[in-house]
Amino acid sequence: MALVVQKFGGTSVADPDRIRAVADHIARTRRGGDDVVVVVSAMGKTTDELIRLAGEVSGTPAAREMDMLLTAGERITMALLCMALIDMGVPAVSFTGSQAGIVTDTTHGKAKILEVRAHRLTEALAAGNVVVVAGFQGVSTALDVTTLGRGGSDTTAVALAAALSAAACEIYTDVTGVYTADPRIVPDARRLPLVSYEEMLDMAATGGKVLALRSVEFARNHGVAVHVRSSFTWEPGTWVREEDPSMEQAMISGVTHDTGEAKVTIAGVPDQVGIAARVFRALAEESVNVDMIVQNVSKSGITDISFTLPKDDLKKAGKVIEGLVGDLGATGWDDDTGIARVSLIGAGMKTHPGVAATMFEVLAREGVNIEMISTSSIRISCVVRADNVERAVRALHDAFGLAEGSTGPVLVS
Amino acid sequence: MALVVQKFGGTSVADPDRIRAVADHIARTRRGGDDVVVVVSAMGKTTDELIRLAGEVSGTPAAREMDMLLTAGERITMALLCMALIDMGVPAVSFTGSQAGIVTDTTHGKAKILEVRAHRLTEALAAGNVVVVAGFQGVSTALDVTTLGRGGSDTTAVALAAALSAAACEIYTDVTGVYTADPRIVPDARRLPLVSYEEMLDMAATGGKVLALRSVEFARNHGVAVHVRSSFTWEPGTWVREEDPSMEQAMISGVTHDTGEAKVTIAGVPDQVGIAARVFRALAEESVNVDMIVQNVSKSGITDISFTLPKDDLKKAGKVIEGLVGDLGATGWDDDTGIARVSLIGAGMKTHPGVAATMFEVLAREGVNIEMISTSSIRISCVVRADNVERAVRALHDAFGLAEGSTGPVLVS
Repeated sequence: MALVVQKFGGTSVADPDRIRAVADHIARTRRGGDDVVVVVSAMGKTTDELIRLAGEVSGTPAAREMDMLLTAGERITMALLCMALIDMGVPAVSFTGSQAGIVTDTTHGKAKILEVRAHRLTEALAAGNVVVVAGFQGVSTALDVTTLGRGGSDTTAVALAAALSAAACEIYTDVTGVYTADPRIVPDARRLPLVSYEEMLDMAATGGKVLALRSVEFARNHGVAVHVRSSFTWEPGTWVREEDPSMEQAMISGVTHDTGEAKVTIAGVPDQVGIAARVFRALAEESVNVDMIVQNVSKSGITDISFTLPKDDLKKAGKVIEGLVGDLGATGWDDDTGIARVSLIGAGMKTHPGVAATMFEVLAREGVNIEMISTSSIRISCVVRADNVERAVRALHDAFGLAEGSTGPVLVS
Repeated sequence: MALVVQKFGGTSVADPDRIRAVADHIARTRRGGDDVVVVVSAMGKTTDELIRLAGEVSGTPAAREMDMLLTAGERITMALLCMALIDMGVPAVSFTGSQAGIVTDTTHGKAKILEVRAHRLTEALAAGNVVVVAGFQGVSTALDVTTLGRGGSDTTAVALAAALSAAACEIYTDVTGVYTADPRIVPDARRLPLVSYEEMLDMAATGGKVLALRSVEFARNHGVAVHVRSSFTWEPGTWVREEDPSMEQAMISGVTHDTGEAKVTIAGVPDQVGIAARVFRALAEESVNVDMIVQNVSKSGITDISFTLPKDDLKKAGKVIEGLVGDLGATGWDDDTGIARVSLIGAGMKTHPGVAATMFEVLAREGVNIEMISTSSIRISCVVRADNVERAVRALHDAFGLAEGSTGPVLVS
């Protein structure tokens, strides 16, 4: 008998029928002898609807109150799920983030979990209950309701799995696992049975939407084995866990892409010590999430600095840059929302130095111009025009032999 | 500078426009120099919608989880209202029932307030905020989320007014006050500027829907002056407070009616000591709210016992009675859902012994048969056929001179 954490996202609990299907699955897990802690998101489009209401009463809704508002969503799901479980003869008890002891800092809208005080959960489990916890939410050290930001329910699930030493953290979603590329773009993309934390981190950071970056970081830091799987087919999905040194590493695990970023370029910046630091410190202070940064070396003593950032942060960043351009002695700046990023991820890349060259060759052959490049030990990312990105993904997926039944990479030199 | 509690019901906050109108009113109160504590209900039909969802996942939704579910409703309203206030430049902070220190017993679905620990509210007021509290909800001594049952938000408002020694508790609703009869049935019904707690209690108990019985009891017990008024016209409404001995008492304050009850009759019961006690103890143990009770004196040694109860409780009561009939040696029982009750309320009735006789005469003249009668010192209630009740209300309202511009009672002997 083990303890399993099962997390169900918004599409998995979108309506009463789905909630009963989920309850049935939990009931079967429970009858199989395992203790179960369930983490739920808000039903379907509930969060979008609440955000819309907020927009109708206020131009800039107060962050504390936005958290109070949005946390109503999971509350509804968890109560309904418990009712359905009890109706099936399975004792169940729901807990809000606060009741579950999810203690966070005071950053409304994207609070960080500081501590999990899970004694109410362990008591309820010991009394024979399935425990259902509201994902995405916690209580701050100032006793206010907080939310954990994007992917917050995944983070709740992983944090509870860590705190309760669960055997596994199952993340149920509307896809059957982690794929070598987005199957909507690459129809013969292949499901990966296993990816390492490192690979998953790079996938999440570069547009893989299956798991949020923070939850993967949390899982890696606490050694939580995560199983991403479908609540529609219930088939086994993808395990995310520690790299197993005895296994042969695939050179490339997948191709990801991201169309949610924009590029900002500051032109004609004097090439002096401390300029980049000033720019990115100022952006950090406004909580702008800068991703790729490229600064060209110059001969003329002036340079251009380019960086990418989420489109949502562009307005904030624009204000910061506008205020800096004069101080820096730069000639101007502009932004570009027509970009996308395509990335290759693979732990085996470390020992295959030719991967980057192959990637650039494939893109060149497709006539896709590369505007920015950044690399890590297990990832290569290129910024390209947004209207080229799907073609780039398909070409790379094909060239590196990632498709179902493929015989492997065909182009690596 | 005083402290005012303002409560807004579901129709008052039914949509974003209404919420902004309410925020505007609160802002004006605040700018007038008063501290304001606001209590809100769930928006419009939110609660009905949540109950519908519960019905779709479970035949008999668990009470604890039903409370968890329903409390999402006020949470949404209060967050939106705070956002709207902040948007208007008025600092505002929302608190759940639990955060507001509304401590209740553990009776899910109709918990009783045991204590109000309002220190977070007084701190937030001292910091210059409008404080917005979720009505209808609290936290039990077992740390579970509870709801206060029907009219619960009114009770929250009155309890907070008592705990914070507020100058007044304003209950904003979709009617402009307490009327001499339901204006939908009696078009010339008159708004009462003032009613005593006692009269309001009897009105609430006999079908007056403006204030819930529990909130009036709470107001009387704690001496809270309640002002019932409209959030659509904002005009002054009806004050509910201590009877003022210097004022001349109206003989009759109003006519109320109630079509939500049914009658149960147990026939052929042996006329023995302790029979009634057994019946009503058994019903009380199942939480059936029995209202009027009539037992006819018999010569034959057997009697009939009749009582009224909310139609919603009929199923529960039927089970209890079915089990008792044999034990009691009764010949049988039946129920009747075709009844209604009409009541006359008036503090001045105490000193006018002819009121009951006049009431019976008026009903007789209208051809309305009386099936049961019960009286208190300031109330007379008659059970009649449901299809006669509107006629009975109009006739009594007219006969006792309650209409706008009326010269007073015309029939009292």
